[in-house]
Amino acid sequence: MARGRKLYEGKAKVLFAGPEPGTIIQYFKDDATAFNNVKKGTITGKGVLNNRISEYLMTKLMEIGIPTHFLKRINMREQLIREVEIIPVEIIVRNIAAGSMSKRLGIPEGTQLPRSIVEYCYKSDELGDPLIAEEHITAFGWASPQDLDDILAMSLRVNDFLSGLFAGIGIKLVDFKLEYGRIFDENGEMRIVLADEISPDNCRLWDTTTNEKMDKDRFRRDLGNVAEAYQEVARRLGILPEGGLQDLQGSDTLQ
Amino acid sequence: MARGRKLYEGKAKVLFAGPEPGTIIQYFKDDATAFNNVKKGTITGKGVLNNRISEYLMTKLMEIGIPTHFLKRINMREQLIREVEIIPVEIIVRNIAAGSMSKRLGIPEGTQLPRSIVEYCYKSDELGDPLIAEEHITAFGWASPQDLDDILAMSLRVNDFLSGLFAGIGIKLVDFKLEYGRIFDENGEMRIVLADEISPDNCRLWDTTTNEKMDKDRFRRDLGNVAEAYQEVARRLGILPEGGLQDLQGSDTLQ
Repeated sequence: MARGRKLYEGKAKVLFAGPEPGTIIQYFKDDATAFNNVKKGTITGKGVLNNRISEYLMTKLMEIGIPTHFLKRINMREQLIREVEIIPVEIIVRNIAAGSMSKRLGIPEGTQLPRSIVEYCYKSDELGDPLIAEEHITAFGWASPQDLDDILAMSLRVNDFLSGLFAGIGIKLVDFKLEYGRIFDENGEMRIVLADEISPDNCRLWDTTTNEKMDKDRFRRDLGNVAEAYQEVARRLGILPEGGLQDLQGSDTLQ
Repeated sequence: MARGRKLYEGKAKVLFAGPEPGTIIQYFKDDATAFNNVKKGTITGKGVLNNRISEYLMTKLMEIGIPTHFLKRINMREQLIREVEIIPVEIIVRNIAAGSMSKRLGIPEGTQLPRSIVEYCYKSDELGDPLIAEEHITAFGWASPQDLDDILAMSLRVNDFLSGLFAGIGIKLVDFKLEYGRIFDENGEMRIVLADEISPDNCRLWDTTTNEKMDKDRFRRDLGNVAEAYQEVARRLGILPEGGLQDLQGSDTLQ
């Protein structure tokens, strides 16, 4: 499948024009950044694993009726997605206190939250993705109250489903970030769909029994065995490529 | 923990008064019935497995904030539960057409439904648990419109979570039956909680790749390896008692 011109290069992914109008090719890099680009590095095989993990999770979510931008995986590092108008809001769903919430509110990391808490951040690298409230989102027109209702309901369903999926393979879903976009159907009707990716880059995943971190915090906090943690998530999901690490070095061809 | 007097004996379970007011001991039998008691038999170890599986699933559901009647497992065949006023409505959540829905509506078994469908049946052995609509439930006062809203919302959350949990271990959650009850807190405020059990007795579970049935349909339809199917569900959930089948013969003591 031929890539068109490069549309955008982000920290972990590159977007190219797709073969049909309204499609995009999403390419997954091994590059990793943290603390808003202050820390940079490479996690060998991350792009291949995130491509596969995100395909798997998006597909499972579509099976329970969550609309997404995902169309199909093309090869080891690329997937075909629908072009969407990205809503500039990151949705963070938290089940256990960790990361920025622990720091911001002084809640020790690992504290079970009284119920799942949904946070919104304004998607802006320059501003460091600042925390916002529903009020800002609707007042600035980033999403309508109806859009936001849909986004919240979908995010809670995603949380319930993924919490179950990961519980089934001995992993606690501590928190995760989602992004949504708008698509317009033949009749010009707008629909909100889940976009971006779902992977250990934007989920906190802890082993149920040992609480060992199996996500990008291993990179952020220099805990070592970063690539191995991503591989272990794929292995437990039953989707680790057969050849293991040697298959994850960089091929773009579908195996 | 001393059992009190027998309160009720059902097809698969016996209820005894519990040690404290407002508690009940739920005892799981190996007896199996189907087609409203027309077919009867025994599945060796079923009671022990369902006690453990239901404990596991109820506990996981409580972790995501679904209130249930479950307090703790006492031994191999008994669990302590809260006394509830059972709402006489069975809630059936269906993801894939099977069983009575396939027969009633002429939809081939295995057909993916356009979305999850919730059915209600009036809980009455004499009447064969007839299908009812929301209209009947609220008109006859079995549950108020508000109760029913809560029950529907909880059932959809249970479906999302359990669909994920089973997907994680290579099992499709085809459909399942839930029951709810009312409890009254210290202030006399009423709450709806999930009751009864969740096990292969009241879930249809199909292997994701082979579509092999791993539930009571093996008994209903004389498919053989009934006990083995229940054990396999427990094994994939990671909760099969260590000794395997020999531990499942009947002991009431906690092992």
